[in-house]
Amino acid sequence: MPNWLLPENIADVLPSEARKIEELRRVILDNFHLYGYELVMPPMLEYLDSLLAGAGHDMDLRTFKLVDQLSGRTLGLRADMTTQVARIDAHLLNRASVTRLCYSGSVLHTRPNGLHATREPLQIGAEIYGHAGLEADAEIQELALASLALAGFTQVRLDLCHVGVLRAIIENDANAQKDESALYTLLRAKDVPALQEITAAYGEESRRALLALPSLYGDATVLTRARKELPALPGITRALDELAALTSLAGEANVTIDLADLGGYQYESGAMFAIYVPGLPNAVARGGRYDHVGEAFGRARPATGFSMDLRELARLLPVAERKRAIRAPWGREALLRSKIVALRKAGEVVIQSLPGYENDQDEFECDRVLVLEDGNWIIKNLG
Amino acid sequence: MPNWLLPENIADVLPSEARKIEELRRVILDNFHLYGYELVMPPMLEYLDSLLAGAGHDMDLRTFKLVDQLSGRTLGLRADMTTQVARIDAHLLNRASVTRLCYSGSVLHTRPNGLHATREPLQIGAEIYGHAGLEADAEIQELALASLALAGFTQVRLDLCHVGVLRAIIENDANAQKDESALYTLLRAKDVPALQEITAAYGEESRRALLALPSLYGDATVLTRARKELPALPGITRALDELAALTSLAGEANVTIDLADLGGYQYESGAMFAIYVPGLPNAVARGGRYDHVGEAFGRARPATGFSMDLRELARLLPVAERKRAIRAPWGREALLRSKIVALRKAGEVVIQSLPGYENDQDEFECDRVLVLEDGNWIIKNLG
Repeated sequence: MPNWLLPENIADVLPSEARKIEELRRVILDNFHLYGYELVMPPMLEYLDSLLAGAGHDMDLRTFKLVDQLSGRTLGLRADMTTQVARIDAHLLNRASVTRLCYSGSVLHTRPNGLHATREPLQIGAEIYGHAGLEADAEIQELALASLALAGFTQVRLDLCHVGVLRAIIENDANAQKDESALYTLLRAKDVPALQEITAAYGEESRRALLALPSLYGDATVLTRARKELPALPGITRALDELAALTSLAGEANVTIDLADLGGYQYESGAMFAIYVPGLPNAVARGGRYDHVGEAFGRARPATGFSMDLRELARLLPVAERKRAIRAPWGREALLRSKIVALRKAGEVVIQSLPGYENDQDEFECDRVLVLEDGNWIIKNLG
Repeated sequence: MPNWLLPENIADVLPSEARKIEELRRVILDNFHLYGYELVMPPMLEYLDSLLAGAGHDMDLRTFKLVDQLSGRTLGLRADMTTQVARIDAHLLNRASVTRLCYSGSVLHTRPNGLHATREPLQIGAEIYGHAGLEADAEIQELALASLALAGFTQVRLDLCHVGVLRAIIENDANAQKDESALYTLLRAKDVPALQEITAAYGEESRRALLALPSLYGDATVLTRARKELPALPGITRALDELAALTSLAGEANVTIDLADLGGYQYESGAMFAIYVPGLPNAVARGGRYDHVGEAFGRARPATGFSMDLRELARLLPVAERKRAIRAPWGREALLRSKIVALRKAGEVVIQSLPGYENDQDEFECDRVLVLEDGNWIIKNLG
C-alpha cells in the first residue's frame, strides 16, 4: 500500500480550504471574545476516565484508546471538548460566579458519523457555567446564531428540543429504563417501526408518548400539540414550559421545535438545540444544557453551551478568491530588502522568486512585480 | 485517582496563556502569508508507515500508536508535521515549481523531550519545496527570524550546523555506520566521554573528527578552524562552504556556528539551524534541509523549512494585560440589544450580566457599564 494513502474518513486540508477554515476560525473566536468568552485549550489526550466522565456509551465507542508509557494507564484521544472544558471550569478555574469559556481544536472519532463524515472534526464552541436560568441558554443560542451570521450564514433555523421529555418518560417506566441508549438512537433517527417494537412491553402511557415524539416537530404550535399528546408528568410540563420561554427569548430568530432531535453525547440535562442551514440535512451547530458533567469533576455547576465543526462550515462557504500579490526578484541588496519589508509591513504579499523560477504560489496571483528603474525599486502592473 | 488529574507532561492552557498563544499564532501565520506561504492542515492521525517515512528511530519512539477499527492497520498520532507537509507537496499538490507551505497544529509525544517539556507541543512552521539552492535556506532562516521579531523576540541568535559533516565522516568509516543514531544523540549532548568510548574502534581520522565536533562552535571563525581540524573529505568541504555562504546571506543577523547541534529527527540532509533567545537553553526554532523525505512519497523534491512550538514561545512572553470591557444588564429590549450589537460591531467587548450576577470574566476588566438614562442606553465609567 503506497504510504501517501490516508486512513478512511481522514483527509488533508489543502490551501484554499485551509485559508477559509482559518478565516472562519478567527471570525468566530473574535465574536466569542466580543461577548466576553475566555479562550481555553484543553489537551488532545487525557486519562480515559476523565474524558468519559458524565458522557454516555456513544462517546466511549467514539474514543480512540491508547496506553501511556509513562503511567501505564489508558489514555483517550478526545472525541469532544465539552467535558474537558467542564473539567477546567469545575476544577482548575474553580470560580464562584458565572464563567464564560470558548475553545477550538481537533477532535478524533474511531468511527465516522456518516458515510462521508470526517473522523477529525475541527470543533469550535462556547460554554457558560454557573447560571441555571434560561437566560444563559438564550445567550448561548444568540451567540451561536450571531457567529453563524458573521460567518456568512443568513438563512438559518434554530431547532429546539428538550431531553427532559424523554427523561420523564423513562423515569416513569421501569421497562424503558434499560433501553435508554437505544431510545436516544431510535428517536434521533425517527425510526418509528423500531420504536414500536422496542416499546411493545412498556406501559401504555410511555409507549404512546414515545411513539408520538417523532411527529412532534414544526413551528411553536407543536408545544400546544405536545401538551395534549404527552402525559402530564411534571418533568414533561417543565420541559415544555422551558421550550416555550426559550422560543420567546429567541426573538426574531426562525425557531422550530423537534422533540425527537436528541443529538449529542447523552450528557445533556435540559433544553437542547440544533441549527440548520439550507441544503444540509445535518445540523451545523448543536448545543444545550449539561448541568451534571461538573459533578464528575468534584463540583456540580450549571452549564450550557454549543459547538460546531469548522471543516463542515467552511465546506459550505464559497471558494475564496486568490489573493493579489507582488512578485519580487531574489536578492540580498539592502535597497530591495528594505522595499520588500516596507511593502509587507503595509500588508502586501510579496513573493521573492527563487533563482530559476518565476512562479506564483497557487493561492496568490502576482498581478504586480517589483522592478529596478533608475536605481529605485518600483511596482509595475503585470498582464 | 481523581478524574481531573491529567497525564504527566500534559496540561490545559488557561485563558491568559491561551490568548497569548492565539495572538502569537495569528501574528506568525500572517507573516507567513505576507511571504507567500500557503496554509495546509494535515491530519492528527495517519497510517504509521506514512508518518515515519524518511525519519529516524527517534521519531518512531516518540510516536503514539493505535489500531484503526476501520482498516485494522496501525495508526500513528503525528509527533512532527514536517513529513506530513512533505507528503502533501510530493503527492497531493504535485506542482512542478517552487511551493511554499505553512502549518500550525498540535503534535503528540509518547515521552517528553526533557523533565518539564510538554508532550503536546503546538507546532507552527513553514517549508519551501522545489529549490535546491541555498537561497531557499536563506529565505527560511529570514522568515524564522522575522516571525520571532514580530512576536517580540529581538535578541535572537541564529545558530548554523550541517548534517553533511557527520554524514561524510560516517560514510568514510564502516565502524561508525552502525552507530549513526547514537552518534547523533551523543553529539547533540556534546557528551565527549561517551564519544571517546564509542569511537574507540573507529579509524583514527574519523575518531579525531568526531571528537573535534563538540568544540567546533562559536562565531564564523569556527569555519576556518573546522577546515584545519576536520579531514578534507568532499562532503565536509561542501558542508563548510555552504555554511560560509549562509553566514554571509544572513546579513545583519547574529550568526554562530555549532557543528554538533544536530537537533531534529534525522531526516535532515544538509544545512540546519537553530534559533536561541536569551535565558532559554533550548532552541525556540529549528529548521534545515531535508531533500530525501519526498522520495518516500514517490517524488524526490528539494525541501527546506523550520518549525517552532507556540506554547514555549508564549511562555517566554510577558503576561497579557486584562482587556477592557463594558458591563451590560441582562435584557431582551430592542433598544438595549441594538446598542450592544453596535458596540460589539465597533470592537468593544460587552458582557451581559446574567440575572443575579454582576461579575467580570477574569480575562476582562469591566471599566464601563451600560445604563438607561432618560430612555437612552449610555456608557458610564466605573470606579
